[in-house]
Amino acid sequence: MSASSTRFAACGVVTLTTDFGLKDPFVGVMKGQLLVRYPAVRIVDLTHDVLAHWPAEAGFWLARSFRYFPAGTVHVAVVDPGVGSARDIAAVESEGHLFLAPDNGLLAGVIESAADVTLRRVESRVLGGIGIGTVSATFHGRDVFAPLAAELAAGRLEPADLGPPVPQLIPGWLEEPAVGSGQVTGTVVTVDHFGNLITNIDSSYLAALSQPAVRLAGRELPLRKTYSNVRPGEYLALVNSFGVLEIARAEGSAADGLGLARGAPVVVFQK
Amino acid sequence: MSASSTRFAACGVVTLTTDFGLKDPFVGVMKGQLLVRYPAVRIVDLTHDVLAHWPAEAGFWLARSFRYFPAGTVHVAVVDPGVGSARDIAAVESEGHLFLAPDNGLLAGVIESAADVTLRRVESRVLGGIGIGTVSATFHGRDVFAPLAAELAAGRLEPADLGPPVPQLIPGWLEEPAVGSGQVTGTVVTVDHFGNLITNIDSSYLAALSQPAVRLAGRELPLRKTYSNVRPGEYLALVNSFGVLEIARAEGSAADGLGLARGAPVVVFQK
Amino acid sequence: MSASSTRFAACGVVTLTTDFGLKDPFVGVMKGQLLVRYPAVRIVDLTHDVLAHWPAEAGFWLARSFRYFPAGTVHVAVVDPGVGSARDIAAVESEGHLFLAPDNGLLAGVIESAADVTLRRVESRVLGGIGIGTVSATFHGRDVFAPLAAELAAGRLEPADLGPPVPQLIPGWLEEPAVGSGQVTGTVVTVDHFGNLITNIDSSYLAALSQPAVRLAGRELPLRKTYSNVRPGEYLALVNSFGVLEIARAEGSAADGLGLARGAPVVVFQK
Repeated sequence: MSASSTRFAACGVVTLTTDFGLKDPFVGVMKGQLLVRYPAVRIVDLTHDVLAHWPAEAGFWLARSFRYFPAGTVHVAVVDPGVGSARDIAAVESEGHLFLAPDNGLLAGVIESAADVTLRRVESRVLGGIGIGTVSATFHGRDVFAPLAAELAAGRLEPADLGPPVPQLIPGWLEEPAVGSGQVTGTVVTVDHFGNLITNIDSSYLAALSQPAVRLAGRELPLRKTYSNVRPGEYLALVNSFGVLEIARAEGSAADGLGLARGAPVVVFQK
Repeated sequence: MSASSTRFAACGVVTLTTDFGLKDPFVGVMKGQLLVRYPAVRIVDLTHDVLAHWPAEAGFWLARSFRYFPAGTVHVAVVDPGVGSARDIAAVESEGHLFLAPDNGLLAGVIESAADVTLRRVESRVLGGIGIGTVSATFHGRDVFAPLAAELAAGRLEPADLGPPVPQLIPGWLEEPAVGSGQVTGTVVTVDHFGNLITNIDSSYLAALSQPAVRLAGRELPLRKTYSNVRPGEYLALVNSFGVLEIARAEGSAADGLGLARGAPVVVFQK
Repeated sequence: MSASSTRFAACGVVTLTTDFGLKDPFVGVMKGQLLVRYPAVRIVDLTHDVLAHWPAEAGFWLARSFRYFPAGTVHVAVVDPGVGSARDIAAVESEGHLFLAPDNGLLAGVIESAADVTLRRVESRVLGGIGIGTVSATFHGRDVFAPLAAELAAGRLEPADLGPPVPQLIPGWLEEPAVGSGQVTGTVVTVDHFGNLITNIDSSYLAALSQPAVRLAGRELPLRKTYSNVRPGEYLALVNSFGVLEIARAEGSAADGLGLARGAPVVVFQK
């Protein structure tokens, strides 16, 4: 929010993050609506397999992923258990990127991790102004978010047009790690395709400890640099490529092997 | 078929709907073949998880989705249990969109739902004319549909070039809902990613009843506007964003909770 | 490697083949990094569901798929159990296409099947030269392969810039079929979305036999042209659209029906 912050200037890229899955045409018709308004749009799927109805996971991945996209990208995230009720649309401008999501805490992870954020709620006159009239009660991804993102990605609408800055949005669902004397307790936020357990413990917590070690499910695990530092089948903890603590099993699935899933507590301690 | 109907004029967008799944490179090589002939093509996946060998589901989704794409889109749908046998290729022009599919009933849903359709079978001389020679016996999506769609999307081939209008194509596999006195009996056509049961009962059937209610699996369900109108865990019926009756469970899976799947009968009645 | 071989000239298309799956944002952020360096890139997913940590399957599909893409395509394949260890990056130029992968045998299938190949290892000075500095220990797809592919697809880097030709790369993991007197023994390499068992037996082996028949799991199966040549539920062998022997069940799953999976032996014999 400083004068020196990077302003959003549309580059024509839109990312999509939802809990819609890919088996139905939900994501496809969102892309159709983007193309109707902005034929030159370039669309990237971030993920559509967020745990259904759990906005926090979408926000976690988005916060850890957006900096790998060009400045000027519009990031649309729709995990929306309250669709059709009177919830607002949140718009967050940060580091030259723009985020659109239901105002249900989804973007909390982005807001917390960025140094430079401007928060807005999209005023309903804006939707009318771009010709969004009657919308379905159940599919705002197609009927509201896609048209709005298209106008923003095309540069016909600026973030400042959406509404005045507001001091805060609905808070997030994920607790931050608990920091005690010489230890940090976090949580498994998601399990990836390989069965790696991905936590909400940022690498900065580990950097503060001279000899960090990791405990979960009654085991103590070594902190290593990469999977190939242990033998196939062995467990390890590492700071993953998204900058958070991850529990992995070399050439295997830590989730299956340890019988752990989302929500499992993970402790980092000074050895 | 009236003089005032919207003619197809290619906009460069191609959608793909198949039962190929995404675990193998089938869809990828179709896109390769589109790019070989038309480098500027913009491709959107509608869905690749249609129930294997069941063309009706592809047609159902396509009929309910195509209007969200730009006029001038070529929609390719390949669910083709008879691939390699002597079945024709159907081309349907409707409301400024063009549909290509095996002539096996897949497009029946599109034909029934559109006011303005021109039906054709693609003449084999057309395929020869664009250089499609020997084709594989098992993958016409790559060897026939992709090249043909590329030529149409690029505007080098017009619908009228494909063959003369024909009065009808192979009929569809899905029965229309049965309309009785004060009640309509339809079927669950598909179960979506959230476990919602999606029926073939169009909203128009419900509009005809002053006090509609829904019965399935021995339960009577209220008709509501959106998921958040009931408490988490409760069942409801609603007209979904694609204009058909849907049975849902707020923040849960109706399919799992009710133990129902494709083919389950659903009754709408006057209360 | 002859003077008459087709040189790679970038066309702006990049394909992606990984074992990352689509449930996490791994593939999305690779695309972000491609777009950051080359905004006009056109990206096609070949498959992201290669068996985790099994490079051979990626190479098999790539070798059978690449010719359906435009000449000048950059094909990136990342199945990388040794990520973070001291393995090289392989670059293979073949028939006007360029392949990038970890030097772990992944590209063996491409090298064996192509008449015209130039092999290179990417020199580390090349990565420094395009501004790739510190990279994560676990996600070279995003941190190394995507930037490198972007520079090559944009034509700012040529294959010859990557390093001098080398005589060989790390060998592959898949054995070639064993050829005996009047019979060939191969292996099921992968099971596709439909449950078809796809083998590593090229059609050329069958062409050499006047009356080929197929044996697996104690059954003898007829060799037919396409699925519709047998009745629904019956098994058959056929040369599939990728030019290899496939075991299928008409309108069903051969894998489920026969209880077979990857690694099952398949014999083609002279009847």
